[in-house]
Amino acid sequence: MEHYFHWFDLLGIAVFAISGTLAAWRNQMDGFGVIVLASVTAIGGGTLRDLILDVPVIWINDNSYFYAIFIAAIGTILLVRNRLTVPHNTLQILDAIGLAFFVVMGTQKGLDNGTSVMVAIMLGTMSGVCGGMIRDVLCREVPMVFRGELYAVTCIVGGAVYTALLALGTAQLFAMLCGMAALLVLRLAAIKWQITIPVFSKHHSDLNEP
Amino acid sequence: MEHYFHWFDLLGIAVFAISGTLAAWRNQMDGFGVIVLASVTAIGGGTLRDLILDVPVIWINDNSYFYAIFIAAIGTILLVRNRLTVPHNTLQILDAIGLAFFVVMGTQKGLDNGTSVMVAIMLGTMSGVCGGMIRDVLCREVPMVFRGELYAVTCIVGGAVYTALLALGTAQLFAMLCGMAALLVLRLAAIKWQITIPVFSKHHSDLNEP
Amino acid sequence: MEHYFHWFDLLGIAVFAISGTLAAWRNQMDGFGVIVLASVTAIGGGTLRDLILDVPVIWINDNSYFYAIFIAAIGTILLVRNRLTVPHNTLQILDAIGLAFFVVMGTQKGLDNGTSVMVAIMLGTMSGVCGGMIRDVLCREVPMVFRGELYAVTCIVGGAVYTALLALGTAQLFAMLCGMAALLVLRLAAIKWQITIPVFSKHHSDLNEP
Repeated sequence: MEHYFHWFDLLGIAVFAISGTLAAWRNQMDGFGVIVLASVTAIGGGTLRDLILDVPVIWINDNSYFYAIFIAAIGTILLVRNRLTVPHNTLQILDAIGLAFFVVMGTQKGLDNGTSVMVAIMLGTMSGVCGGMIRDVLCREVPMVFRGELYAVTCIVGGAVYTALLALGTAQLFAMLCGMAALLVLRLAAIKWQITIPVFSKHHSDLNEP
Repeated sequence: MEHYFHWFDLLGIAVFAISGTLAAWRNQMDGFGVIVLASVTAIGGGTLRDLILDVPVIWINDNSYFYAIFIAAIGTILLVRNRLTVPHNTLQILDAIGLAFFVVMGTQKGLDNGTSVMVAIMLGTMSGVCGGMIRDVLCREVPMVFRGELYAVTCIVGGAVYTALLALGTAQLFAMLCGMAALLVLRLAAIKWQITIPVFSKHHSDLNEP
Repeated sequence: MEHYFHWFDLLGIAVFAISGTLAAWRNQMDGFGVIVLASVTAIGGGTLRDLILDVPVIWINDNSYFYAIFIAAIGTILLVRNRLTVPHNTLQILDAIGLAFFVVMGTQKGLDNGTSVMVAIMLGTMSGVCGGMIRDVLCREVPMVFRGELYAVTCIVGGAVYTALLALGTAQLFAMLCGMAALLVLRLAAIKWQITIPVFSKHHSDLNEP
């Protein structure tokens, strides 16, 4: 049962490590700072989730997460060095895939530890969002969660689809794959057609001008 | 006894959620990124405090914190959409109110868990300051704790007034209200008259120029 | 045995507090915001390490860490006020010394709590790097871990030298001092001769342009 959990976790870790490496490349970082950014992006969200749940942090007794990060980062470096261009939007798409894994896995880990469904979805969203948030803050960019179309909404939808299917009694693996697919499709559609939910009109703020 | 604690916590959460929403509005963020910024501002400081004290994070078994955030954020969005201007300094004043609640509540939570008075005041300051710090970092602004006049001092004063009154044997609620009032009055006065404690003269730094 | 641990910790704390104070000075921060930046730099990395290891945070039952921060910060303020110039690179050198203490102490704390050698070195690196990372993010600078030559590599080397000597059966204090020395020498040499390990060629990124 727990078997594919570990692989989903590793896949999410690897995808976020690739996105961290690409962000480092884009910011012309050199040296092993790349490894730092890849690691922080990959384990930031899951670490925060586990700290809040007060369970052992996923990577504390398991070296395989580091192998996943190293392999992903070094593979990306080799690929990028040889091609020197990366298609537009690659970073956003990888981020969306990492999000899909982390949100559903994080929601499940919340439920496993006895949280309410709402808190579980919040924890899933947090573990999906925070690694990328730290990545973007360290690169001094506007976090993708604010730029990205429907970013937070897709996380909530992914977690909600997963928990709803569980409540309907479907098999867990099926519910997981559906939750991930819902999140991924919605996010990719939002990227492609630039779907947003404007809540504020354009305005000239006179609030607290510097 | 614990009864008003919960309400103070919820009020602090709501006020910080409003300040996060206003910061999102000021930065022309759209979509539900607003909810992310409101949540991070509201629960960031308290979450860090509880992690450090190794007690269950306040919102992990209690959905009411999320209701408070949602209501505060949606109320603020509706208000701002209809008025389109927010008086100058509103963000700073809300931040000061949130600070008053969080610093005193955080100090008490430290004492409850057996820390020294100094560490308790430090924890109170941390829970008051960190939510706003994350808000400002995510908005790529100079954190208010550095811009704000007497910011850290007001936190220490609020915590000190509270613990001093407790030590003198006053009723806890009275001590709390006095600590909050002291913090709030000092901070608002510092904002109004721009009181600062300059520790460095103006200078041309030749330290580590980029 | 534990005796010099405490002093190494305090020394690392004090050195990072000085580096935080200098960063505050460089950014012309006034008031006690300096104390906030000094504290965050000094205790950020160790706090994160202890949270992840799920052991009591170093400063929670021990006021001496705060005395170290206050004395270091106030001493630095007095020194800077009277001289008004600080030699070029001072911040980088102090950061390197703090790094040496924190990486080795953090690696040891990981081993003490039963982690693998690889995870212990990772934890040591994290406790060395994260305080300075938060300092740089709050000052809105590119984190030194990305600008700094061989920054992450020196941490890994320091931790590796320490754990290798331990495995060879040398005295713990000797292994610690060697690990710290290796880290410090490598980092200072990298600063002096600007040694880098370029992993990406210069390029024009067409990835995800804003």
